[in-house]
Amino acid sequence: MVMRLDARQGDFDARFADLLAAKREASADVDAAVADIIAAVRARGDDALIEYSARFDRLELTPETLRVTPDEITAATLACEARTLEALTLARDRIRSHHARQMPKDERYTDAIGVELGHRWTAIESVGLYVPGGTAAYPSSVLMNAVPAKVAGVPRVVMVVPTPDGRLNPLVLAAAGLAGVDEIYRIGGAQAVAALAHGTATIAPVAKIVGPGNAYVAAAKRRVFGTVGIDMVAGPSEVVVLADASGNADWIAADLLAQAEHDTAAQSILVTDSADLASEVEIAVERQLSLLPRKEIAGASWRDHGAIVLVEDLKAAVPLIDRLAPEHLEIMASDDEALAGMIRNAGAIFLGRHTPEAIGDYVGGSNHVLPTARSARFSSGLSVLDFVKRTSILRCGPDQLRAIGPAAMVLAETEGLAGHGRSVALRMNL
Amino acid sequence: MVMRLDARQGDFDARFADLLAAKREASADVDAAVADIIAAVRARGDDALIEYSARFDRLELTPETLRVTPDEITAATLACEARTLEALTLARDRIRSHHARQMPKDERYTDAIGVELGHRWTAIESVGLYVPGGTAAYPSSVLMNAVPAKVAGVPRVVMVVPTPDGRLNPLVLAAAGLAGVDEIYRIGGAQAVAALAHGTATIAPVAKIVGPGNAYVAAAKRRVFGTVGIDMVAGPSEVVVLADASGNADWIAADLLAQAEHDTAAQSILVTDSADLASEVEIAVERQLSLLPRKEIAGASWRDHGAIVLVEDLKAAVPLIDRLAPEHLEIMASDDEALAGMIRNAGAIFLGRHTPEAIGDYVGGSNHVLPTARSARFSSGLSVLDFVKRTSILRCGPDQLRAIGPAAMVLAETEGLAGHGRSVALRMNL
Repeated sequence: MVMRLDARQGDFDARFADLLAAKREASADVDAAVADIIAAVRARGDDALIEYSARFDRLELTPETLRVTPDEITAATLACEARTLEALTLARDRIRSHHARQMPKDERYTDAIGVELGHRWTAIESVGLYVPGGTAAYPSSVLMNAVPAKVAGVPRVVMVVPTPDGRLNPLVLAAAGLAGVDEIYRIGGAQAVAALAHGTATIAPVAKIVGPGNAYVAAAKRRVFGTVGIDMVAGPSEVVVLADASGNADWIAADLLAQAEHDTAAQSILVTDSADLASEVEIAVERQLSLLPRKEIAGASWRDHGAIVLVEDLKAAVPLIDRLAPEHLEIMASDDEALAGMIRNAGAIFLGRHTPEAIGDYVGGSNHVLPTARSARFSSGLSVLDFVKRTSILRCGPDQLRAIGPAAMVLAETEGLAGHGRSVALRMNL
Repeated sequence: MVMRLDARQGDFDARFADLLAAKREASADVDAAVADIIAAVRARGDDALIEYSARFDRLELTPETLRVTPDEITAATLACEARTLEALTLARDRIRSHHARQMPKDERYTDAIGVELGHRWTAIESVGLYVPGGTAAYPSSVLMNAVPAKVAGVPRVVMVVPTPDGRLNPLVLAAAGLAGVDEIYRIGGAQAVAALAHGTATIAPVAKIVGPGNAYVAAAKRRVFGTVGIDMVAGPSEVVVLADASGNADWIAADLLAQAEHDTAAQSILVTDSADLASEVEIAVERQLSLLPRKEIAGASWRDHGAIVLVEDLKAAVPLIDRLAPEHLEIMASDDEALAGMIRNAGAIFLGRHTPEAIGDYVGGSNHVLPTARSARFSSGLSVLDFVKRTSILRCGPDQLRAIGPAAMVLAETEGLAGHGRSVALRMNL
């Protein structure tokens, strides 16, 4: 039975706090192993990559076969069904159009005393994209990471993907081709992250690494952070559905289960002011569960981490949702816009009864890489901004230096940095 | 004698690569100690903070005296010289005006098929600002971190600052007052970071932690990353001056030394196409060094990490500078705008002979928290964007779901996520 919380009951605050504090993912202690792997790749480059691929992926590689050839990408694309390629192309085009609007603008202006200020955005020169192998090899994730990088103008996008027993998902290659990925290497794990960060004879290093991965990949990204940029370390996925009595119990149950089928550590929560809807959804979830091929995973997620929270009215749910800071928030209520406007912390909001989160996962156009594990309190979903950086620009002339230089000299003096003061004073002939 | 490199000589590439690879800062291995400190603060809260302050800062605190009172802030402000307060106020106002222009805009639009897309920016609900104690307690850094947070609309900005032997720099308190910091606690080190991330009885937790600190603080920030957001972990400061023969050797030398006086690990590099200027600057640096109170520090930095790079022409310097990716780049050359436009990787560019970097440190208005250690390849200086986050918004109606839903169903099927497909299919009555 799923956890039920009622805001009108005395133990609500304590139980809601428990829900917030529950750790859904065991953090495997893999850091020492990852440190060794990174050191080996730094010391022995391609040879280390080849050894690890043989050991972990049962795949014999040479420096010449590390890279996936253009012919392989073409062949993979030709092997895809037409309707799949069409769907991928629709998704690619919608992601591209939406993200093109995110490109930030350069600025340059002169202030009241004549100081010129501004900034210029430039694309990161090279980006590595980690793509998990096996069952979690999602072509949609390739699009969601690679398309914004290309929209930002990143000249070199490098994909790494482990190929256990030599098997590569052709859809992943097709998506990479559609997204304009420039280089693909058939390596994975911490060793692939190390190769991207530090480079080998075959793989030139990149400036930033993005994309999801297992505990080894996450630990490796943390370790190389600083040498390269990294994106958020993603945790298990989660959804909160906020619905009033008008909500369709079947549709809501389907959305909760779509989240739950990702992972036993995924989390699906319904928040409603309708006790009837709460009960109907609980029943509908049990009924629909039996229909799902991944019912074991979805059932475990719902049983262990799912929750139904009953509130007095939906406005009273807003502070609860801000504390949950969900990756995905669906709002199905008559005043959905007003409620959305009150929420501070959510990765993405899906408005209305006809916007299941799965639309956002694939073809909405917005990005499906979103902050998990309450990190929407301080971070945002992936966007073009993750693939550009800003250089600030400042210009003074003699008059401006005379106007603001003395204040700089006073502050330099108070901070004990006489050399700073001198660099201003010399130009003012003081 | 400072290192000199000449792009026309055969060993240039190897020597430039050495310059890039040189590690300027010993990375103290403090991680185990930091893990213990964080665990103690999580387990024993205020008591642990009080014990660590007694041990590391020789300061006896109680839960009641952890927080700096408004009266103390007022008293510190009254104790400052008028000219200092005026300079701080000028800096605060210029930082505020400039950063107000960085506030990103919300967006909402309807695409060709009627899907509504958009995003909404919201301020992070609470931010912690770490301020180092002792000689590195810079009031200008308080302004550079706290003002953008307040411009972004962060309701709660919490400052922590260690107070060895109970001593607090009054200028730091005055700057915090001017910047609108909401709470100040007299604690520092990894224990202060732990308190900000996890909270104690006295200190409510924050959602993000920014600000510079020593190796313990940096290690603690890395460890709490995920529970809270963090900013870049800053390394030693650096400047590259790009100058043609018109450069004033004395001014350039002063700028190189202003950088060098920060820290023996700081780095100052002149890149020029004029052998005469190179020699004049080298002589001017030696002459000016003797005038600096911090000549030991500046001299060590210049001797150990400084460099003069001679190039054929300044355009040829652009790829070298992109590889250095300097925190600060000064350009003093007739075609400074054209050169600036060619640079991809720099934290901030200072244009013209009358823009010493020290102006940007204090009163220019742009932020002085900038990416160090080549991280300008993938990251930007601090801005209002670091204190807000984006929630994406998506809305479909029945017509839009019919238009793009089938493609989502195809992709869900190929990824083996039948529950995703069902959540769309149910609404389409398929």
